[in-house]
Amino acid sequence: MLSNVLARIDQHIKTLGQYTSTPGNGTTRMTYSKEDLQARNYLKEVMKDYGLTVSEDGVGNIFGKLAGEVNGPSVLIGSHFDSVPHGGNYDGPAGVIAGLEVAKLFQENGIQPKYPLEVVALVEEEGSRFGGGLMGSRSITGKLTDQTFRELTDSQGVSTVEAMKSIGLNPELIKKRDKETMKAYLELHIEQGPILEKEKISIGIVEGIVGLSQLEVTIQGRAGHAGTTPMNDRADALVVAAQIIAKLPTIAEIYGEGTVATVGKLSVYPNGANVIPGSVTFTIDLRSTDEANLKSLLNDTQTFIRQWKKEKISISIAEQLYMSPTILDDEVKQQLKKGCQKHEISYQSIFSGAGHDAMVFAEQTKAAMIFIPSKDGLSHCPEEWSDHHDIEKAVYVLFEAVKHLTEANQHEQLY
Amino acid sequence: MLSNVLARIDQHIKTLGQYTSTPGNGTTRMTYSKEDLQARNYLKEVMKDYGLTVSEDGVGNIFGKLAGEVNGPSVLIGSHFDSVPHGGNYDGPAGVIAGLEVAKLFQENGIQPKYPLEVVALVEEEGSRFGGGLMGSRSITGKLTDQTFRELTDSQGVSTVEAMKSIGLNPELIKKRDKETMKAYLELHIEQGPILEKEKISIGIVEGIVGLSQLEVTIQGRAGHAGTTPMNDRADALVVAAQIIAKLPTIAEIYGEGTVATVGKLSVYPNGANVIPGSVTFTIDLRSTDEANLKSLLNDTQTFIRQWKKEKISISIAEQLYMSPTILDDEVKQQLKKGCQKHEISYQSIFSGAGHDAMVFAEQTKAAMIFIPSKDGLSHCPEEWSDHHDIEKAVYVLFEAVKHLTEANQHEQLY
Repeated sequence: MLSNVLARIDQHIKTLGQYTSTPGNGTTRMTYSKEDLQARNYLKEVMKDYGLTVSEDGVGNIFGKLAGEVNGPSVLIGSHFDSVPHGGNYDGPAGVIAGLEVAKLFQENGIQPKYPLEVVALVEEEGSRFGGGLMGSRSITGKLTDQTFRELTDSQGVSTVEAMKSIGLNPELIKKRDKETMKAYLELHIEQGPILEKEKISIGIVEGIVGLSQLEVTIQGRAGHAGTTPMNDRADALVVAAQIIAKLPTIAEIYGEGTVATVGKLSVYPNGANVIPGSVTFTIDLRSTDEANLKSLLNDTQTFIRQWKKEKISISIAEQLYMSPTILDDEVKQQLKKGCQKHEISYQSIFSGAGHDAMVFAEQTKAAMIFIPSKDGLSHCPEEWSDHHDIEKAVYVLFEAVKHLTEANQHEQLY
Repeated sequence: MLSNVLARIDQHIKTLGQYTSTPGNGTTRMTYSKEDLQARNYLKEVMKDYGLTVSEDGVGNIFGKLAGEVNGPSVLIGSHFDSVPHGGNYDGPAGVIAGLEVAKLFQENGIQPKYPLEVVALVEEEGSRFGGGLMGSRSITGKLTDQTFRELTDSQGVSTVEAMKSIGLNPELIKKRDKETMKAYLELHIEQGPILEKEKISIGIVEGIVGLSQLEVTIQGRAGHAGTTPMNDRADALVVAAQIIAKLPTIAEIYGEGTVATVGKLSVYPNGANVIPGSVTFTIDLRSTDEANLKSLLNDTQTFIRQWKKEKISISIAEQLYMSPTILDDEVKQQLKKGCQKHEISYQSIFSGAGHDAMVFAEQTKAAMIFIPSKDGLSHCPEEWSDHHDIEKAVYVLFEAVKHLTEANQHEQLY
């Protein structure tokens, strides 16, 4: 093992963290911004330094390729390098850095893989500038078409194409890649939850990514004067919403671990201290590792909400999103577990509660993910932090799996 | 009885309703605006036409005085003539018009009262421009000092003094009047609630005005990712707030009629669909006709809320306002009931759930109010409507009471 992996990780995290439009107040790195260009130039320099051939595609995803003995499909490893506003230094970059350091281990050990290795740095996973999210991976896999991509604009009305050109990127380049060019996709990501830290485990082997349903519920009652309307003559939309929101956790908890329900966003109208709420709109975010549970919870939730319909209370439920759970590739998971065992690194299986680029790649190639602990379970905030020793451990685990997938193991013996 | 009272009421309501800055979208008549000046000029003209001597005070309240035989204290009758934004044509003006028509009946019947009658049209009861509300009555009674009045500004930073001068009013005039100059204050107002309409009763004799407590509650939990934080590891501020809000009505209902509790305003932070709410702030408006009930409900509410304090949930409660219930004058109430009986008009006792200028006058003189039904209980909206026949009935009831209070009855016999 090479002890300067850790030093290089420190250096990468520190350098990329400087490319923020909100210095001192977290990392804010919008796609195709000045800070994107700064991070992009740094990543491309490191790739070249690590012996990789750099290219960019028509949405600005960056690829650093180590050629294989055969011109076959590549093993991709990486993550995204954009951030949410006032986010942290790890969500995304930790995975890109892990990919770079795996490539560096190939270089340092003089390993020539049979199949190519590609370190990938993806754009706009968070969707903070152009909405939707997972833009880089959805473009590569063809789920986001060239035409749809060109129609996207940011909140200022700037189009993707204009924004790309403003930092010297070329939107005319190829965007989608053929699935036959990909042998596997591996991604390290911070957990963004408390489990690994609580269990004092360094590596989470991600079993799969939760399925997700998002609802928007509107309760329509009748506004009225808080002083002049007797309690028994009210149709208070907020009291009905409160009854629902108060009960929702117990409905979700029936399904046990791996299933969650959250009301994160709520608006009251007219929202005056002396006015009975006439209507309330809120979101419900339902997630489960198990699709049967997700569907059942979705059904339970809708049935429960509809029970609150009354003479003066009307209720509408709009299903805004439904995504099935993703099960990641068993063979690669086995390789990752072997890597942990070889290096005597603690690991456990874990489900991802958040969506990731790996979920998109999983539809076209063998995809796998590993998580490292997040301090206090926090992410998407300046306090986001992961131990660089855990990133280092992940690099060795990923190195083992990538050697296997690129069929580089036999060659390693030679050096 | 004179049948053209109704026609004059129609005319006044129609004319004053034209003085709005939002034609077609309800009455918006801010204090000291162009529309205030238009309504003011109309009211002053009508006062003069009805044989009253017009004056304005240092905050722009309008007084139309019918001199008495003695230079003693006046019987005041009226209401306010400002509106909320996009309000209706009745909240305020109906009471000013009733005062005018009582004076008109004195004129038409050639009645010279012993004590003076003053029709009053008050400014800024709603507080829509300068905040706080009840500005006209608080100024007359000295509860709002000249200095404090001068320090008030609207949301654009315009001071009361600048705004007064912009429509030709003189802020240097006397504002407070001596309590010895007031013999009584009578006010007609729309109910702003559903009770009289439901009971098919034309006149509500207001027993008193509810006491009021306003709280602001903040629940502090811990934000987290909606997908990655297990249900049993959450400190969801909105779920706690919902438990409280869902239960609050049953806590208030124990006290029966006359006691109400409302959560009208609520904000969630950070308010993202995929983020567990970290904190929630909401108002609680508690009202009761009975002070012991109000204090007990306030205590019950605070005790109940504090029970939700847990390891990861902190709760703060700020008491922002407390006002005791006001009991209106028994003698005047009796006179008003006699007037209803004399004219065979249906009436019942009722409590006011909203605050009114009469509440302020009650601290310095005999004060009384009558309510007329509000269609569908609505107010503070363009749909606000009351039957002009009910205003007419109220005029006759008030006429009887004002004759009694001004000691004009004996003189009436002469004509």
